[in-house]
Amino acid sequence: IDVNDFATVDERILDLHEADIADILDELNNAQAKVVYYRLSEELQADVLMELEEEVRERFIKSLTPTQIAEQLENLDSDDAVDILGELSQREQVEVIAEMEDDDAAELVDLLNYDEDTAGGLMQTEYIQARENWPVNRAVIELRRQAEEVDKVYTIYVVDAMDRLVGFLSLKSLLFASPKTAIGDICIRKNVISVPTGMDSEEVAKVMEKYNLVSVPVVSLQKKLVGRITIDDVVDVIKEEADKDFQMASGISEKVESNASVWRTSRARLPWLLIGLLGGILGAQVIGSFETTIGAVPALAFFIPLIAAMGGNVGVQSSAIVVQSIANGTSQFGSILSKVGKEALVGLLNGFICSVLIFLITFVLEDVTLGLTVSISLFTVIMFAAMFGTLVPLVLDKYKIDPALATGPFITTVNDVLGLFIYFMIGIMLYGI
Amino acid sequence: IDVNDFATVDERILDLHEADIADILDELNNAQAKVVYYRLSEELQADVLMELEEEVRERFIKSLTPTQIAEQLENLDSDDAVDILGELSQREQVEVIAEMEDDDAAELVDLLNYDEDTAGGLMQTEYIQARENWPVNRAVIELRRQAEEVDKVYTIYVVDAMDRLVGFLSLKSLLFASPKTAIGDICIRKNVISVPTGMDSEEVAKVMEKYNLVSVPVVSLQKKLVGRITIDDVVDVIKEEADKDFQMASGISEKVESNASVWRTSRARLPWLLIGLLGGILGAQVIGSFETTIGAVPALAFFIPLIAAMGGNVGVQSSAIVVQSIANGTSQFGSILSKVGKEALVGLLNGFICSVLIFLITFVLEDVTLGLTVSISLFTVIMFAAMFGTLVPLVLDKYKIDPALATGPFITTVNDVLGLFIYFMIGIMLYGI
Repeated sequence: IDVNDFATVDERILDLHEADIADILDELNNAQAKVVYYRLSEELQADVLMELEEEVRERFIKSLTPTQIAEQLENLDSDDAVDILGELSQREQVEVIAEMEDDDAAELVDLLNYDEDTAGGLMQTEYIQARENWPVNRAVIELRRQAEEVDKVYTIYVVDAMDRLVGFLSLKSLLFASPKTAIGDICIRKNVISVPTGMDSEEVAKVMEKYNLVSVPVVSLQKKLVGRITIDDVVDVIKEEADKDFQMASGISEKVESNASVWRTSRARLPWLLIGLLGGILGAQVIGSFETTIGAVPALAFFIPLIAAMGGNVGVQSSAIVVQSIANGTSQFGSILSKVGKEALVGLLNGFICSVLIFLITFVLEDVTLGLTVSISLFTVIMFAAMFGTLVPLVLDKYKIDPALATGPFITTVNDVLGLFIYFMIGIMLYGI
Repeated sequence: IDVNDFATVDERILDLHEADIADILDELNNAQAKVVYYRLSEELQADVLMELEEEVRERFIKSLTPTQIAEQLENLDSDDAVDILGELSQREQVEVIAEMEDDDAAELVDLLNYDEDTAGGLMQTEYIQARENWPVNRAVIELRRQAEEVDKVYTIYVVDAMDRLVGFLSLKSLLFASPKTAIGDICIRKNVISVPTGMDSEEVAKVMEKYNLVSVPVVSLQKKLVGRITIDDVVDVIKEEADKDFQMASGISEKVESNASVWRTSRARLPWLLIGLLGGILGAQVIGSFETTIGAVPALAFFIPLIAAMGGNVGVQSSAIVVQSIANGTSQFGSILSKVGKEALVGLLNGFICSVLIFLITFVLEDVTLGLTVSISLFTVIMFAAMFGTLVPLVLDKYKIDPALATGPFITTVNDVLGLFIYFMIGIMLYGI
């Protein structure tokens, strides 16, 4: 499309959904995107801006002057505005804030103080509240005014004279109450769920999931209502958390977007590779110390990768299940002992099947002593890896370390080294060297 | 607590939030839970039932008679009722349905026909709709009646005379319109997002995320409105999908709950262990074919696990990123070539760092030829694993196979075997054997 053909742009783009307009802008360069963007109404601009791909939005924002950025931020919900502001440098932040209206600026400066990963960092200050001492007729007028500022109204919050959250109000009860009734008399005070500003965002997600909330009020230390968090922000938290666990289990130590720079991507992966390297060197030491054994029975060397790999695989399988049940908070069921016991049974069963198979194969390929050595050590290694893969994440969790750390190269590496040691010890015993 | 002390139960439990009551019931046995459960109001019973842990709910339902189950199902939202019904045996389903009122039964039988993993399987038939030819005053009466059946009203859908979805209605516009206006004149017909019954549930989640919806209408092939899907069900889909990817990457082939039986858990893990076993045997063949090389330079055997492990680690890291960007639908950015190019650069950088380190270490521990052999093959293996880890998930995705399959033991195993081959070939060249 030719972006300077305004008639076509207006006709074909302006009526689309904000998410679809954003998809189109994602494909354009800055200059083209700007032309289309400024054809949109202010409200639509704000919606489209938040739907852009993150890197496109950053590029787009960087191409605007501080005054233009300030204009855009004023259109946005406060939680989105502060996210964009947070991505700018300190100097740019000051320039942009200087261009904003005092009210909006003060609000954003407040929000900037909260840690990104807490309820305070997720919340927006656009919400609807009524005071408990207001009569219904005044509340209706006030609420209608407030509602103009708020995009989606899920719940009306009721506060006391000190701005402390005391309950919720249903739209229905407001419509059918007589005009002189006090809000405090019709508000719901039972099961008022709120979260403190300092609550970790993962905890917020768990609270909203547990109580099936589409929005949750945020309160300060003095129990004052200061904001609300909506479900769409929490869905992002859940997805990011799952992504982070997955990456960590795959040996990537920092959260990395797929479009991050080569240098950042490398850096995030290096720590685990170095641990793997260390494991490999330890493994080399173990094998080196059994050099005479290998000299006597060279065929023992053939199954080194098999023993190492199987230990790693089983360990990762066991720990993945434990890491997930911890993440989903379902670990209350059964004690640690019952979990370990079950993994031992699973290890027993799979270890037995794999050992019998490998015995038959090595027996056919080589001889019965090698078959026994490989199958007995494989069984031992699988049993051990299953136990170890279960215990490590449980112990890490107990000491408040993210158990996802355990799933990846860490478990693999430890199981490699120990597996080799077990393998050669059994080999020495069976061959009687 | 003593569950037969009704006064205490009533006082301490009945006022709690449904999710908290469910937490308490989770800890009780069936008999105790039933006593408390039947002290609750019918509406609260339904809410609590859906908040129970899955295994507790199944156990609890199994302890009820068909008539009792039918009573409970009638209280539930249709999507929840059909989920519970789906967990029963065919015979039990027939018995329960026979006990239900005809209307409710017919609805559930309809819903049972949809595949669990589609929009039809997720949707509930409780929603609010107005006909476009209704005047506002009639609509208000009809909607109020409908609203009694529906737990949470997010959107009012507008349908034509053929029950086809034509638009949305905002509560605000309904309140301020004159009583004789037709609904069709005040409804919003722009950007009406809906999903067909057959759409995959992951696709539904993507649509709701993209358009930031808290509920989405579901339409039949004839475009008739047949249900709606709410955000809480979609959050479950997102979490399950992430769990499944994580498990698959960890070498667990079927979705397994942490409370599944030992046999099911073992079975889900065995396929990957067998692939690992096969890889180990192939690895043994590779090493076996280099037996004379090892005989000449036994120290080469020391670094077998290092080469195998590092290839696996790098492959998993690369594929994890690609799998995630495919899952998040962000893979539209940059072509396949640019992704592979970037992974090659990351591999180059990390491979170089690791190779230099391992050269220094082996040089100190052993000699310069071994140092060169290990470091050059490590570099080659890392580069190869990075490429392979990137390409395999992309290719799998192209052929509509779940790319998460690639992350786990499959990549590790292939990289193990090929890494060993590369290692010994380089060893033979450098030692001139």
